[in-house]
Amino acid sequence: MDGISELRQNPATREWVIISTDRAKRPEEFGEGSTVITNESQLTCPFCPGREQNTPSEIVAYRPEGSSPNAPNWWIRVIPNMYPAVSPKGELDRKKVDKIFIKMDGVGEHEVIIETPDHFNIIPKMTVKQVEEIFLVYRERYLELAKNPRNESVIIFKNYGKNAGTSIIHSHSQIISTPIMPLHLRQKIEEAMRFFDDHGDCVYCNIIKEEAALKERVVFETENFIVLEPFAARTPFETWILPKKHESSFGSTGIESCKELAKAMQIILKKLHKSLNNPDYNYVIFSSPCHESELEYFHWHLKIYPRLAQMAGFELGSGIYINSVPPENATKYLKQTVVD
Amino acid sequence: MDGISELRQNPATREWVIISTDRAKRPEEFGEGSTVITNESQLTCPFCPGREQNTPSEIVAYRPEGSSPNAPNWWIRVIPNMYPAVSPKGELDRKKVDKIFIKMDGVGEHEVIIETPDHFNIIPKMTVKQVEEIFLVYRERYLELAKNPRNESVIIFKNYGKNAGTSIIHSHSQIISTPIMPLHLRQKIEEAMRFFDDHGDCVYCNIIKEEAALKERVVFETENFIVLEPFAARTPFETWILPKKHESSFGSTGIESCKELAKAMQIILKKLHKSLNNPDYNYVIFSSPCHESELEYFHWHLKIYPRLAQMAGFELGSGIYINSVPPENATKYLKQTVVD
Repeated sequence: MDGISELRQNPATREWVIISTDRAKRPEEFGEGSTVITNESQLTCPFCPGREQNTPSEIVAYRPEGSSPNAPNWWIRVIPNMYPAVSPKGELDRKKVDKIFIKMDGVGEHEVIIETPDHFNIIPKMTVKQVEEIFLVYRERYLELAKNPRNESVIIFKNYGKNAGTSIIHSHSQIISTPIMPLHLRQKIEEAMRFFDDHGDCVYCNIIKEEAALKERVVFETENFIVLEPFAARTPFETWILPKKHESSFGSTGIESCKELAKAMQIILKKLHKSLNNPDYNYVIFSSPCHESELEYFHWHLKIYPRLAQMAGFELGSGIYINSVPPENATKYLKQTVVD
Repeated sequence: MDGISELRQNPATREWVIISTDRAKRPEEFGEGSTVITNESQLTCPFCPGREQNTPSEIVAYRPEGSSPNAPNWWIRVIPNMYPAVSPKGELDRKKVDKIFIKMDGVGEHEVIIETPDHFNIIPKMTVKQVEEIFLVYRERYLELAKNPRNESVIIFKNYGKNAGTSIIHSHSQIISTPIMPLHLRQKIEEAMRFFDDHGDCVYCNIIKEEAALKERVVFETENFIVLEPFAARTPFETWILPKKHESSFGSTGIESCKELAKAMQIILKKLHKSLNNPDYNYVIFSSPCHESELEYFHWHLKIYPRLAQMAGFELGSGIYINSVPPENATKYLKQTVVD
């Protein structure tokens, strides 16, 4: 790049990022490794089998037919979060406080998906079937929560490692539903709508078509999904997975498609795990609002954020991220990384 | 809060946050302390006096009259960043790459303000005069950079500690100018404009009036500034400082006013330092765009973000932060914290 960094714009959100390789590290240099795996806490872990009574009663579990709820022989278990950020109780009306402030009850559901009975297992090391079932549980819970008229949006996410916001070792993900449209999602949708107005087409469909033709940022494709490093990646190794067919809601994904997504996710998480020495990461599923499941202009997608860099003052002040690894380099590296 | 969390909306941006005290810590419990102070690196620190030749030539410095540039007897020194995210070279035109992607050269200036010759000094421990001069340098550099027609926005910020994105111990802050309007700033300005359209008045002026009357979130006031914990604080102890008089650009601040800001900043940083056991933090000055310095609807302000919690998947996915310390509690605590 001849000493000049690049400003790149995410066509889906019009957010700018700075790709600056001056301080670039090679991928190997990122790996301080995850902060997640220690030997502590197995003795008291409330997610381990045998301690079902230490959690709220399960919402659903994958367990042998006929076995009782909250007994130990499950392989995936969904429970209400023990320290929920939101609660199903409460009123939906916005309350004006003083002259200019608005508040409302923190209405919503906050669930935890315990992904395995094994305290030390992680997605890259699970059987394919186990990962498929985790994603089928996501789908099942999404569909259930999206039906509730009090929920405006349903967010499925995973925090892995301390730098990604969790200190709980036992592999799990979370779902939070909100009674309001998150501003972040509204902005994404408005930008996508703007693109649709200008081009008569979904911006994400355009990205997929373009990236599939260019190939330089595509890590791999499956029949129905594409796994890529986005053109304006905000952080090193930010990764997107999108369904090739236009679908605005994660809830529209069929069972077979959901299994295919799970397989693709496991492959890319294995590659990230191996390339970056077991990094901390988050992933999030971005779906259209619950009650707008068939938008022509929005396209659901999953984003993985390895937590290799810390958001600093400039990012907080401008929303512009400085990324030291061009996504083309990240793609090459991930493609070269062989996983079984 | 009776077990139900609260959703609160920032009236200036319409961003929602969840105030959830279920997992609340007392302020004392946050203090793992800063990750910044170690004894390492003084021997090679390029910011220490005597190593001026290890940095690019200074842009400006506070030093005895008649002393030569890049000699050691300065007390504040501004240099180009050694690993700049942006560079003054480059073209301003947006380049269309492939069908839907836009990029441009990373044009801009990236400066470092070395705040003290003393490797171990930090703002809470400096003399008032030193802090005043740091803020006068901010003002001087802001005015200079804002004059450049290639700069669209000028962002002044500080990263303190590893959790805030720096591993450099020697006290410093940074300025980055960008040739594009950061989307984040545009959104802030558009929301403020919307409020102005609805109410005929600046939303920040309204917040100041309201908070000054209510008092429960005001940490302290000086003649021309108010220091408060915002109604919809995104993270524990997020703190805002605003000029009471309407001004959209930081560049409009007079010299005396700038010194008063410096004094207020030192007091609040002392309080945060003492209350939270020397936390890592960022601060950022939000100002109107360089060439729009007299907007009726935008009001410059400074935000301090103690980095006590990690942004996790839910925040990344929704933009909604979960904050375990209601700003009213943070205010009480900071008011009680006596500093000299």
